[in-house]
Amino acid sequence: MITNYYAVIMAGGGGTRLWPLSRKDSPKQVLPLVGERSLFQAAVDRLDGIFEPGQIYVVTVAEQAKALQAQCPQIPTENYLLEPMPRGTASVVGLAAIALRHRDPQAVMAALTADHVFQNEGRFRELLLSAFDSARQGHLVTLGITPTFPSTGYGYIQQGEWVESQRGLDVYHALRFVEKPDERRARQMLESGDHAWNSGMFVWEVGRILAEFERQMPGLASKLSEISKAWDQPQRESVIQQNWPKIQPETIDYGIMENARDVVVIPAEGLGWNDVGSWEALFEALPADEEGNIVLGDGYIPVDTRGVLVYKKSSPRLIVTIGVEDLVVVDTGDVLLICKKDQAQKVRQVVKRLEDSGTDYL
Amino acid sequence: MITNYYAVIMAGGGGTRLWPLSRKDSPKQVLPLVGERSLFQAAVDRLDGIFEPGQIYVVTVAEQAKALQAQCPQIPTENYLLEPMPRGTASVVGLAAIALRHRDPQAVMAALTADHVFQNEGRFRELLLSAFDSARQGHLVTLGITPTFPSTGYGYIQQGEWVESQRGLDVYHALRFVEKPDERRARQMLESGDHAWNSGMFVWEVGRILAEFERQMPGLASKLSEISKAWDQPQRESVIQQNWPKIQPETIDYGIMENARDVVVIPAEGLGWNDVGSWEALFEALPADEEGNIVLGDGYIPVDTRGVLVYKKSSPRLIVTIGVEDLVVVDTGDVLLICKKDQAQKVRQVVKRLEDSGTDYL
Repeated sequence: MITNYYAVIMAGGGGTRLWPLSRKDSPKQVLPLVGERSLFQAAVDRLDGIFEPGQIYVVTVAEQAKALQAQCPQIPTENYLLEPMPRGTASVVGLAAIALRHRDPQAVMAALTADHVFQNEGRFRELLLSAFDSARQGHLVTLGITPTFPSTGYGYIQQGEWVESQRGLDVYHALRFVEKPDERRARQMLESGDHAWNSGMFVWEVGRILAEFERQMPGLASKLSEISKAWDQPQRESVIQQNWPKIQPETIDYGIMENARDVVVIPAEGLGWNDVGSWEALFEALPADEEGNIVLGDGYIPVDTRGVLVYKKSSPRLIVTIGVEDLVVVDTGDVLLICKKDQAQKVRQVVKRLEDSGTDYL
Repeated sequence: MITNYYAVIMAGGGGTRLWPLSRKDSPKQVLPLVGERSLFQAAVDRLDGIFEPGQIYVVTVAEQAKALQAQCPQIPTENYLLEPMPRGTASVVGLAAIALRHRDPQAVMAALTADHVFQNEGRFRELLLSAFDSARQGHLVTLGITPTFPSTGYGYIQQGEWVESQRGLDVYHALRFVEKPDERRARQMLESGDHAWNSGMFVWEVGRILAEFERQMPGLASKLSEISKAWDQPQRESVIQQNWPKIQPETIDYGIMENARDVVVIPAEGLGWNDVGSWEALFEALPADEEGNIVLGDGYIPVDTRGVLVYKKSSPRLIVTIGVEDLVVVDTGDVLLICKKDQAQKVRQVVKRLEDSGTDYL
C-alpha cells in the first residue's frame, strides 16, 4: 500500500441504457451483470493489493448508498460521500477532492468508474500504478484504452508527444478529447494509431485538480470552498445540502479535462475493458456459446436461435425462442424487453416515455 | 329448427401448435383467442337459429368435459359424449353416430370443429343448411372453402361434376382428397379453380356414415356395435371403457372419406374461415394495426416494431419490443415464447421436447 494514494469510485450513475434491469433503486453497478459479484463489488475487488479499504472512497447519491454499503462493508462508512442529487462527474470529483485534502494535503486520487469490467484486472492494476506515479509528477492523467475496433460508443483522446515512461508504460501528452465519433471518423482514429479510448478514469494530485476547478469552474469551486470550510464542523451536511442544488450539472471531461493544463494519457492494451454501457456492450463483455448465444439465468430453450442475449436471473419462467437472431431478451419479472441487438440504444427512448407517463417501471 | 338435423361438435383436440397458450387442461377451444367468447362458445353460438341446444352434441375427452360444460351449460349434460382417450376423428364421428341413431334413426348429423373461426357466420349457416339438405339426399357432404391463397397448411378437395344446387349453393362430386401440398402444388390447385379447402367439417345421414364404417373400418364398426347394444343399459360406460383402448387411432378423412361412395363437396366463398391452427394462422384471423401489429392484452409498448403478434391477456407485466418484426410473442405468466412468425410450426418440436423431459409446462 502506497502512502498518499487514494481511490475514489464514482458510483452514483443511473444506467438507464440497461433498463429494465437497471432501475432507480437498483442501478447497474449494484447488479451482478458479469460474474457473481456486482459491478461495484468488482470495481472494489480489483483494487486489492493497492489500497487498504480505508483508502477507498465512494461518491454516490443517498438512494443508492445503503445498497452499496451493504455490498462493500469493508469500506468505512465515513468514506461513502453523498451527493444530495446528481450534478455530474465534475462535482463528484470536486467533493472527493476536498474530502481527501482534509485528510491528506499530499493526496493523489484516482477517479474510477463503478460500472466497467476488465477481463485482465492485473493489467488494470499496472496501468493504475503507472498513472499514480505519473500524477505525482504533477500531470493530470487519463487512463486510455488502446482501441481494438472503430467504436462509435466511446470518446477518444489523441496522443501527442511522448512524456515519460512509468513502470514500463508510455505516457503521452493528451492533445485533444474527441466526443463519440461517427463510424468514418472512428475508423480514421483507429487507423491513425495515436488515439486511445477515453475510459472516463483519471488520476491526479488533489491540489492540482482543485486548482483547475478554480481556474476553469470558479462557480463550482466557490461552492466546494464553502463546503470545505464546514468540513470538520457540525454543519457540514447542511452546507452541502444548501450548495448542491445550485451546482450546474457538468462532466469532468467537458468542464475540466478538455482545457486543462498538462493533461497526459497512458494508453493500455490487453485490458479487456468494457464499459457495460448498453445491452450491446454486454454482448462484448460476456462469453457466448457455439450459437453465439449468451444466457444468464436458468430455464431457457433456444430453437434455431443465434446471437441472442437472454437475461432472466430473477425470472423463474420458462423462455423459448424459435428462429430468431441478434436479439436481447431481458425478463425482470415485472418487465419484458425484446430488442434487436443493434437498436439497443433506443431503450433510452422507452425510459423517457415511461418517465413522462409517470409509471412504476423505472 | 329442422327435425332430424343435429350438430356434433368435435371438441377433444389438444392444439399443441398454439402452445404455450393451449395446454392439456385448457386447450385452444376453451380460450378466448379471437373476441370475448372462447372458440368453443363461438362454435356453439354460430348454430343459433338452426338448432335448439338439445340438438347439439359435443364429443370430448374427460379432462376437458368440465370446462366445456361450464362454458355452454345450455347444452344438456347427456349430450356431452366422452371419449375415454383420443382415438382420432373416425371414432369421434362413430360414437356420435350411434348416440344419434338411438335417439332418431332418421338423424342427419353435421360433424363440426370446435376451434375454427368464421368472420361471416351468417354465410356459414347458409352453407350448413345447404349441406344438410344435400345430405338428406344420401350424399356424404364435405364443407369446402373456396381458397383465397395457395395455402400449404390445409388439405384440398378436387371438385368433379356438378351434382345439384341446394339453397343457391352448388354441390359437386368430390373427386379426390389432397393432403397438405407443397407450395408449387398449392399454387396449381388455387389456379385450377376446381379445388376447395377441406374444412374438416362434414354432414351426412347417420345411417349412411355407419354403413361406410361397416364397409371401410370393420374393426371400429364392430366395437361401435358393441357400444350401441349397451347404449340404453347400465353397463354402457363400462363397455365404452373396455372397447375404446383397442381402437386404432384414425382420422375420418383418411379412414372413411377418401374412399367413401357418393362424396360431394360444397365450396363456399366469403366465409372468412380460419382454422386458428397455429400462431401464424392467428395472424390471419385477427385485425392488425397500421404497423401490422396485433396486440391481445394490455401493457405493451412497441418501438420500431412491425408485424408482431403479442398475446399477453393473462400477464400483468409490461412488454417492450424494439426494432423487431414478424415475431410472435406469447406471455402466459409461466412461459414466454418468442418465435419468428414463419417458423411457428416448430412450436411442436418444443412441446415434444417438454413431453420427453416430463415438465410442468404442458
